[in-house]
Amino acid sequence: MAKVLVLGAGMMGTAVTVPLTDNEHDVHLVGTHLDGHIIEEIHESRIHPKLRSAVPASVKPYPIAGLREALRGADLILLGVNSLGVEWAAEVLGPLLTGDVPIVALTKGLVGDGQKLYILPYVLRNGLPSSYREEIRLAAVGGPSIAGELAARRPTGIVITGSDQTFLDEVASILRTPYYHTWTSTDVIGVEVSVALKNVYALAVGMVQGLMEREGIDEEGDVMHNMAAAIYAQGLYEIAYLVDYMGGEVENVYGLPGAGDLYVTCMGGRNMRMGRLLGLGMRYEEAKTQYMVDDTVEGAELALAIGDTIEAMIERGNLEGAALPLLLTMIDIVCRDEPVQIPWDRFFSRSYS
Amino acid sequence: MAKVLVLGAGMMGTAVTVPLTDNEHDVHLVGTHLDGHIIEEIHESRIHPKLRSAVPASVKPYPIAGLREALRGADLILLGVNSLGVEWAAEVLGPLLTGDVPIVALTKGLVGDGQKLYILPYVLRNGLPSSYREEIRLAAVGGPSIAGELAARRPTGIVITGSDQTFLDEVASILRTPYYHTWTSTDVIGVEVSVALKNVYALAVGMVQGLMEREGIDEEGDVMHNMAAAIYAQGLYEIAYLVDYMGGEVENVYGLPGAGDLYVTCMGGRNMRMGRLLGLGMRYEEAKTQYMVDDTVEGAELALAIGDTIEAMIERGNLEGAALPLLLTMIDIVCRDEPVQIPWDRFFSRSYS
Repeated sequence: MAKVLVLGAGMMGTAVTVPLTDNEHDVHLVGTHLDGHIIEEIHESRIHPKLRSAVPASVKPYPIAGLREALRGADLILLGVNSLGVEWAAEVLGPLLTGDVPIVALTKGLVGDGQKLYILPYVLRNGLPSSYREEIRLAAVGGPSIAGELAARRPTGIVITGSDQTFLDEVASILRTPYYHTWTSTDVIGVEVSVALKNVYALAVGMVQGLMEREGIDEEGDVMHNMAAAIYAQGLYEIAYLVDYMGGEVENVYGLPGAGDLYVTCMGGRNMRMGRLLGLGMRYEEAKTQYMVDDTVEGAELALAIGDTIEAMIERGNLEGAALPLLLTMIDIVCRDEPVQIPWDRFFSRSYS
Repeated sequence: MAKVLVLGAGMMGTAVTVPLTDNEHDVHLVGTHLDGHIIEEIHESRIHPKLRSAVPASVKPYPIAGLREALRGADLILLGVNSLGVEWAAEVLGPLLTGDVPIVALTKGLVGDGQKLYILPYVLRNGLPSSYREEIRLAAVGGPSIAGELAARRPTGIVITGSDQTFLDEVASILRTPYYHTWTSTDVIGVEVSVALKNVYALAVGMVQGLMEREGIDEEGDVMHNMAAAIYAQGLYEIAYLVDYMGGEVENVYGLPGAGDLYVTCMGGRNMRMGRLLGLGMRYEEAKTQYMVDDTVEGAELALAIGDTIEAMIERGNLEGAALPLLLTMIDIVCRDEPVQIPWDRFFSRSYS
C-alpha cells in the first residue's frame, strides 16, 4: 500500500482515485486554487460535480492550502492539472519536495517557445528546483481514457511512459486493476507527442459534424463518416511525422497514445463541441467567448501553445510545411480566427501522389 | 471520356458510378448472377434497393447475361463484387478479355491456402488466363468509403494502389471529383492488407456495444469508448505487424487504408451489427444463421478465409502468435464458435511491457 497524493481535482485526477483506492492505496486528493468548490462539494456530498459520480469513501479531499499537510509521507504524486497548470504545479510543489517523491503526470500537452517544441514532462522538470531537478523520477500517462468511464470502472487501457523502466513497472503495478490495464513504454516522445497532438486533430474531426449540419445533411439522418475518417487518418499521419521528427517511435502513433487516444477523443467532449461550432461557420474567438468561455478546449489550447513555434520552425526549414497541412489549417482557425476550410489537396503529400 | 464497365451492382459498385458519371464517363453497370433483382429494380425505378438512392440517369444497367455486350469498347473495368466473388469474376471476365483492358478492384480481402496469405489482386490475377495474366494492368482501391456517403457526394478520400504509377495516375484522374479525393500508392501490400484486416478488427470493436448492453450499462446512457479505443489501437497494431511481415509499409497502416478505413468501419454497418450480437453472448454460428443469414459480414468472412492459414503459419514459426492475440481471439470466436473474451493481458506485447 502506498500513500498517493493526487494534485488537481478535475475529472481525470478524481477518476484515477478509483483504481488507486480499489488497490487499497491511501489517497489524498488536493484541489488546485481553481478547484475549491469541487473539494467543498466532495466534503459535503462525496459527489464530484463534473464527473457526477461518487468519490471513493477513503479518498481524503484537501483544498490547495492543505497541500503541505497532504504531502506528508507521500510515496507518489499524480499530477491531474490540465496542460495550462503544469508550470503552476511545479512552482507550488517544488519548494515542498526534496526530490525523493516521484511525480506521474496525467496531463497532456506540448509547448513551444518560438524556437522549439517541448513535451510537458520537460516543462515540469524544468520548473522544479535545480537542487533535485535532474534526479527526481518522473513519468506520464497516455492513452484513451475518458475520466467518467474510468471512474465507473469500465475497461480502460493506458501507457505509462518515462525513462526509468523499474519506476514505470512500479507505477504500472500501483495503478493496474482488472479494469485499468496498464502498459509501459520508455518512448517518452512517442507517447507525449501523440497524446498532445491528438487534441488538435480531434478538434478537426469535430468540425465535420458542424459542416454537415450547416449543409442541412444531418436532417436526413445521414452522416459524413468518410470525411471524418479521412481527417482522422491525416491527423495520425501528421502525428507520425512530428513524432519521428522529435525522435520518437511510430509504434506509439498507431498504438494507444496515438490512434487509440485520437479515436476516443473523437467520440465526444469539448474538442468535438468546439469543432462543431467551427464547422457551423462560427469563428474561434466568437465560439469560445459566446459558448465555451469556461471550458478548456485542449485542441485549441494546443494550437495556441505551439502555433507560432510550428510556423517559425517551418519558416526556418526545421519542419516541412507540406507534411502538416491540417495542423497549419487548425492554427489558422484558432490563432487567426480564419474560417474552416479542409486542405484536401495538401493531404498525404509525403507518401501519396 | 472513358467507357467504364462496373461489374457488381452492390452498394459500392453502384456508388462509384456517381463520381464516374459526374466526370462524364460512359458507365455500364453489370450485375452479378446474384444481382438480378437489383438490375431489374434499377431498370424500373432507377433506385438501388439497398443504397436507397437514385442511380445516375446515364448509367446503363445490364444483367450478367449482358456482360459480353457491355464490355464492347470498354476502356476500364471496375470490380465491385465482394471478397467471395473475386475468383468468380476472374472466371467470367477471363475468356472475354485479351489483357488490354485494365481492371481496378473495389473489393477488399485476404485469403489463405493453409500455407501463405494472398491479397485479392493476386487472386484476381491468378484467376485470369495465362495468355495475358502477367501483362494486364491491375489496381485496387482502399480507404474509408461508406458507399451511401459516396453516392450522396459527401467528401470521401481513397487510395488507389498498384505497381504501375502511370496507370494509377490515370485511374486517379478518372475517379477524382471535388468530393471524391483520390491518392495513389505503389505499396500494394500495405494498402490491401490494411483494408482487408480492418474488417475483422471492426468486428472486434463492435463487440464492445454488445458487452455493454449485456452488463446493462447502456441503459444509463453511458458508453465504453475507452475499451473500443483500446481494441481499435490493438487492431491497428496487429495490422502493422502483418503489413510489415508481408513486406508492406507502415505508412499505409496509419493512413487512409489502415487507420482511416478501420475508423469508418467502426461507425456502423454489418461488422458492427454482428460484433454486437457476439458481445451480447451469442455464438457466431447462431448469430449468423438466426439474424444475419443473408448478410456478408466481411470481418467474419476474413476470419474464415485466413484463420487456418494464420494458425498454421504461427505453428510453423513464420508468424509470431504473441503479436496477434486479437486476431487469434476473433478466429476462435468465428471459426470455433467460442465465446467473447478480450485478451487484455496479451495486448501490445511486442512494444510495451
